[in-house]
Amino acid sequence: MSGERVVEALADISPDLGRYIVEFGFGDVYSRPGLTLREREIATIAALTALGNAVPQLKVHIAAGLNVGLTRHEITETILQMALYAGFPAALNGMFAAKDVFAAHDAEETGEAAGSMRRDTSN
Amino acid sequence: MSGERVVEALADISPDLGRYIVEFGFGDVYSRPGLTLREREIATIAALTALGNAVPQLKVHIAAGLNVGLTRHEITETILQMALYAGFPAALNGMFAAKDVFAAHDAEETGEAAGSMRRDTSN
Amino acid sequence: MSGERVVEALADISPDLGRYIVEFGFGDVYSRPGLTLREREIATIAALTALGNAVPQLKVHIAAGLNVGLTRHEITETILQMALYAGFPAALNGMFAAKDVFAAHDAEETGEAAGSMRRDTSN
Amino acid sequence: MSGERVVEALADISPDLGRYIVEFGFGDVYSRPGLTLREREIATIAALTALGNAVPQLKVHIAAGLNVGLTRHEITETILQMALYAGFPAALNGMFAAKDVFAAHDAEETGEAAGSMRRDTSN
Amino acid sequence: MSGERVVEALADISPDLGRYIVEFGFGDVYSRPGLTLREREIATIAALTALGNAVPQLKVHIAAGLNVGLTRHEITETILQMALYAGFPAALNGMFAAKDVFAAHDAEETGEAAGSMRRDTSN
Amino acid sequence: MSGERVVEALADISPDLGRYIVEFGFGDVYSRPGLTLREREIATIAALTALGNAVPQLKVHIAAGLNVGLTRHEITETILQMALYAGFPAALNGMFAAKDVFAAHDAEETGEAAGSMRRDTSN
Repeated sequence: MSGERVVEALADISPDLGRYIVEFGFGDVYSRPGLTLREREIATIAALTALGNAVPQLKVHIAAGLNVGLTRHEITETILQMALYAGFPAALNGMFAAKDVFAAHDAEETGEAAGSMRRDTSN
Repeated sequence: MSGERVVEALADISPDLGRYIVEFGFGDVYSRPGLTLREREIATIAALTALGNAVPQLKVHIAAGLNVGLTRHEITETILQMALYAGFPAALNGMFAAKDVFAAHDAEETGEAAGSMRRDTSN
Repeated sequence: MSGERVVEALADISPDLGRYIVEFGFGDVYSRPGLTLREREIATIAALTALGNAVPQLKVHIAAGLNVGLTRHEITETILQMALYAGFPAALNGMFAAKDVFAAHDAEETGEAAGSMRRDTSN
Repeated sequence: MSGERVVEALADISPDLGRYIVEFGFGDVYSRPGLTLREREIATIAALTALGNAVPQLKVHIAAGLNVGLTRHEITETILQMALYAGFPAALNGMFAAKDVFAAHDAEETGEAAGSMRRDTSN
Repeated sequence: MSGERVVEALADISPDLGRYIVEFGFGDVYSRPGLTLREREIATIAALTALGNAVPQLKVHIAAGLNVGLTRHEITETILQMALYAGFPAALNGMFAAKDVFAAHDAEETGEAAGSMRRDTSN
Repeated sequence: MSGERVVEALADISPDLGRYIVEFGFGDVYSRPGLTLREREIATIAALTALGNAVPQLKVHIAAGLNVGLTRHEITETILQMALYAGFPAALNGMFAAKDVFAAHDAEETGEAAGSMRRDTSN
């Protein structure tokens, strides 16, 4: 998973930053009651699209959004809406980030399907 | 209502900007299917808190969020979460904007209650 | 003039910052050939509207734009266009900055006209 | 053309975002009277350089600026001026974007010239 | 102290945000070895000046910088340097924030001196 | 050196921008008394990490920081602290920039050591 890879990538340079992200971000904030995980991911996708300078993290959260049950359409609507508040370039760059994540998911699923077919035929 | 006052304030300087906001913003984007109005306001409150340079518009959308059924707690959770993505100053300034909007609502309701009591006793 | 007041305001805290603004900003950049002063002010008004975190400086340049011959309409068109690139809140806040500057100019002119009438009648 | 490619790239993920850009951006805003297309591109190049988080869109508008008659010098002057308002990194990154666009134009023209020479010699 | 007032101001709307700021900000980050408190305040004053959308927090940290031993000159040098990286408006607005904080300190000291004189003469 | 390469890269498109960076940036600002070069690089690394849209310039200054005597730990502490003021994505992207610079330095040193060993054995 992407979040885990971030922590791994920090291991040799700043493990504490990785620990803070996990403990403060996921331990403290995402586990709070008051908003559903779907709503929290809508908020994060909106903010990272609007800020426009954190594309890798936006992709992590688009994938996380799919994992907590957001549809692709709900994600693209959230991104499109940001045109109003941060301009068209921010919305465009967010949309292309979503396109990349969706394509990677499709490739993964095709790969898994192919892999599962190979396993089936290997019997 | 705040949105209407914005359009009025633009009347003598750039009525077309007001028209674009109404037509493009509310006519086109907010009326799209795919996200509920509650979810759209969560996205907007998150983005405006994170951007940090549009406090008047953030207040308009905190009030709009209350109008479409977000609780105060859901709004403050959305703002608090932005500490992760845009830092504590952005979250703090968003929270103080919410505090202002909530206080104005309380004052209005107290005023309305008082007004309604006066009307009652005037019988 | 506003630019001069900025330099004065810096005199007791950082006169060098004032000197850099005058020497580098006005001595070096604005006096360069290649763009007219009108075009330079369009560029600056656009950028400061889009950045959204420098309203006092935006007002200085809206006034400077009027001084180098931009019409009010050209200034409001520049600001309105920023809705596309930085979102509606940035355009709105820029437009309200313009409204303030235009109102101050009107008040000044009315004052000058009144003053000039008083001088006339004092003969 | 780049603008058309953007719309095409959106076709399978968010055709409505592409439609809004064309209708609202080009239909509504760029066709407005009050500023020339040259002046509108100066404003956009300035804003996207200053914002610093939309390099692909900045490149589209540097190319568009050339198409509506801005000289390379006028474009680099606009970008250089942004050092004053958004700092040297923003101006530098904008200048390198211009360098890329100018090099692509030179390559295209050389290619076209070579193609036209080949066509000539094929007679 | 300002930091304490921030926590108090959050008490009725989001005490958890106040707790996170104290625990994560001051408990975890500022108490880390590796940088002196003087250096940490230089970093924070630089960042908040450059971001330009968090003036209240910048003022808190200018005051905190004085408390941990930065001279006024060191603070204004840090702010002035930001002209290079975030432009003159950001540096100017940072410098005026410093001017306010320094003036408040002077007023406080004058008040304390006057108070101490009054206490002396009351003997 | 990186700073020199920037100036070279500007030679054919905007030599004046290169000259301003050298004269104003290094001639005027970095040579000012009041802060040490170590402190100036802490301020710049903090600001560029927080702004988040100038990764190439951040890398130049991480390398410059090492050159003026900052340890790797001091640099990563400065970057980590920015999580508080600009959010985790900005801190993460800054940390990965540092990781790249440190790896390039290690490769260079290994290369130099190998080169020096080859020179030794060539005797």
